Amino acid sequence: MSQESDKQRLRIGLCGLGTVGGGTLRLLTTKQAEITRRVGMTLDIVHVATRRPDASLQELGIRISQDVFDVARNPDVDILVELMGGFEPALELVLLAIENGKHVVTANKALIAVHGNVIFEAARKKGVVVAYESAVAGGIPIIKALREGLAANSIHWLAGIINGTSNYILTEMGERKRDFPEVLKEAQQLGYAEADPTFDVEGIDAAHKLTILAANAFGIALQFEKIYTEGISKITTADIAYAEELGYRIKHLGITRITPKGIELRVHPTLVSERQLIANVNGVMNAVVVKGDSAGSTLYYGAGAGANATASSVVADLIDIARAGKDDRTGSVIPPLAFSNLRTDLEILDISEIESEYYLRISAYDRVGVMAKISQVLTNYGINIEAVIQKEPHGADLEKGTVPMVLLTSRILEKTMDIAIGVIESLDEVADSVTRIRVELFNDEIA
Amino acid sequence: MSQESDKQRLRIGLCGLGTVGGGTLRLLTTKQAEITRRVGMTLDIVHVATRRPDASLQELGIRISQDVFDVARNPDVDILVELMGGFEPALELVLLAIENGKHVVTANKALIAVHGNVIFEAARKKGVVVAYESAVAGGIPIIKALREGLAANSIHWLAGIINGTSNYILTEMGERKRDFPEVLKEAQQLGYAEADPTFDVEGIDAAHKLTILAANAFGIALQFEKIYTEGISKITTADIAYAEELGYRIKHLGITRITPKGIELRVHPTLVSERQLIANVNGVMNAVVVKGDSAGSTLYYGAGAGANATASSVVADLIDIARAGKDDRTGSVIPPLAFSNLRTDLEILDISEIESEYYLRISAYDRVGVMAKISQVLTNYGINIEAVIQKEPHGADLEKGTVPMVLLTSRILEKTMDIAIGVIESLDEVADSVTRIRVELFNDEIA
Repeated sequence: MSQESDKQRLRIGLCGLGTVGGGTLRLLTTKQAEITRRVGMTLDIVHVATRRPDASLQELGIRISQDVFDVARNPDVDILVELMGGFEPALELVLLAIENGKHVVTANKALIAVHGNVIFEAARKKGVVVAYESAVAGGIPIIKALREGLAANSIHWLAGIINGTSNYILTEMGERKRDFPEVLKEAQQLGYAEADPTFDVEGIDAAHKLTILAANAFGIALQFEKIYTEGISKITTADIAYAEELGYRIKHLGITRITPKGIELRVHPTLVSERQLIANVNGVMNAVVVKGDSAGSTLYYGAGAGANATASSVVADLIDIARAGKDDRTGSVIPPLAFSNLRTDLEILDISEIESEYYLRISAYDRVGVMAKISQVLTNYGINIEAVIQKEPHGADLEKGTVPMVLLTSRILEKTMDIAIGVIESLDEVADSVTRIRVELFNDEIA
Repeated sequence: MSQESDKQRLRIGLCGLGTVGGGTLRLLTTKQAEITRRVGMTLDIVHVATRRPDASLQELGIRISQDVFDVARNPDVDILVELMGGFEPALELVLLAIENGKHVVTANKALIAVHGNVIFEAARKKGVVVAYESAVAGGIPIIKALREGLAANSIHWLAGIINGTSNYILTEMGERKRDFPEVLKEAQQLGYAEADPTFDVEGIDAAHKLTILAANAFGIALQFEKIYTEGISKITTADIAYAEELGYRIKHLGITRITPKGIELRVHPTLVSERQLIANVNGVMNAVVVKGDSAGSTLYYGAGAGANATASSVVADLIDIARAGKDDRTGSVIPPLAFSNLRTDLEILDISEIESEYYLRISAYDRVGVMAKISQVLTNYGINIEAVIQKEPHGADLEKGTVPMVLLTSRILEKTMDIAIGVIESLDEVADSVTRIRVELFNDEIA
């Protein structure tokens, strides 16, 4: 333990010693000298709460508790670092730490997305900082970029690959022509997907992160309850191959955009032109593109998960707090959601209210005139066909007597597309439900 | 002009109303409300120095001077923004502003790269901030990423496309198969290249920026005098086509890397695998890849120049200073080169001391055994050939009786390669000087 006076030390209480907690402990203990060289202050872990106490912690002179609340109550702790995840007891713990005048650093995206408004309000009242860079996109300093680096910009939109598991699965499906269940199983064996993969592959994890990004981009409250979420489990290798033939890749994107009608906030598989840099972000990597009115499009790329990358952002938050002066209790120097005053005049749009171009894959019986019929339905709803792929049936299609037809449509209101798809599905010639994937052109909707 | 008390106002003096100065003025005046919403403080331009005074400035209630030093002497200015460029009078002006206790924001990469050490020392003594995000990579918040976002990392290396003009010319040469002089001329007509393009195409501008990036990455003094600089004017469309055949793109990169021998600091055309994300950064866009020990590789992409993108970073620096509290005169909260104490134990390596793989293009007379002779020379110096392209001669080669031979070599010390190339050039069979382009594999040299 350091011998500096308390003025020169930032005393850290660490709650949770799982993957990220272990990485943070390792980073802070092995790199203390270099961090001190950066900060001019020692970052000392003085208290750890873990259910699996370890002799090496005691050797470091670190106090150990089984009860995480001991850390929040310890007057010798300046900052509580919450790396347990989940809602309980994390929420209660964070609120108690704030109540006791401690700064908080957390990697808990679910906690911030769902309970952030309450947490930030409590922090504002006590004048402490709540920092969460590690909650979004792992080692990429994207929150800092939005809140500080791009602070001179009105953000028009942002779009990101913010779940490494989904991106890994889509990349593998595309490169190795293997279907979702098989790739998922392998990803689980490799440790890239959890035993229960729902959070990742159904888009919930990405939805937490996008909620946080949108709040920072537009200066609005966190509104996780209003986000549209769709995962990758229904994407097929056939869709990936058709998209490629049309010059697109399928990526699981979080998209948020300010439009004259309100704010789009949506997570779903998306066709992206192969010429976009983000279309070439593969494997477990993350990337976020931000369109600002002054800076234009900027992109931030890196590892979105893992013990080391996430710990990098946890410790960056600690360094920020140390540099601002640990005794700074103004707390609001840099507002937690990038703005001093949040806007309340912007509504989150229902998904039915967004406009998009669409990829449609329709399984139709191989009869004369079926394409004409489908085209007519689309025309009736003001939808143009921009590109078509129709091939000779083979495999399962040949047995069923069906033929797959793939269309790219013009831009249209989602609820109009819903109706058009309903009509198409009701045609006698159409064998199955229509697959619909949104296409993202990264356009602005404001002047 | 705002009516807030001086406590709630940051009073800005702007020196220079060229492209970036005009953009900054526009940004600050048109977006005052949104910036105030972010900062909780008004950013007011109270004084402008320009040789072309404009009636609209007077309407805004802004004081106008022809003499920039008036701004540095004005007690009602909290921050001096230097957007004139060049060394004189910028250096004297910045030092006077610091002496008078003003914070300084500058976009002047040459000034920081060459005189930064003196400027930062003066700022340290007076406890003021000197911020220069806009000096490197325009609207991309790369200085902030290095200094804050990645502060928990030991940086192993970074590599960047940091001159938009060079990247535009190389992109056009590759896509349109047109040679350097022709593309340069067109770039000048489009305003992407200056009338005197030396600064951009000979790599000097990139060298200024890389000097600044390296100092922030490793916590060393600015050492522009030790950088190795090579521009793009000798690259041919043939080189670009051969590189492509081998799976590479030619990019003008700034590379800095910590090795057991010292620090590499070099700017030159570089072969980069087409599978690297940075190989796909085209046109005037910039991108920097940073390898940190915790975060891994992260990449930052965006517009590297232009009035709006650069103004975005100028104003971001102003917002940082405002958020920290304009009356903060500790100055050293976030050190100007990312570290409280700079390292003096790291030498900048001479280019002859670096190791690299190489692309060699050799124009040889079309005789039996010439490849064997060249191979033997390389073998004598411990250099392996990893790939070869040799084609039937045509065009000018056919007339001269020469044949172009293209080789990719194994990794070797640059000074050994210098000798081997000298020997090859002395062979009777070799018609011309050898073209040598370094290949970057983005490897670490430290464990």
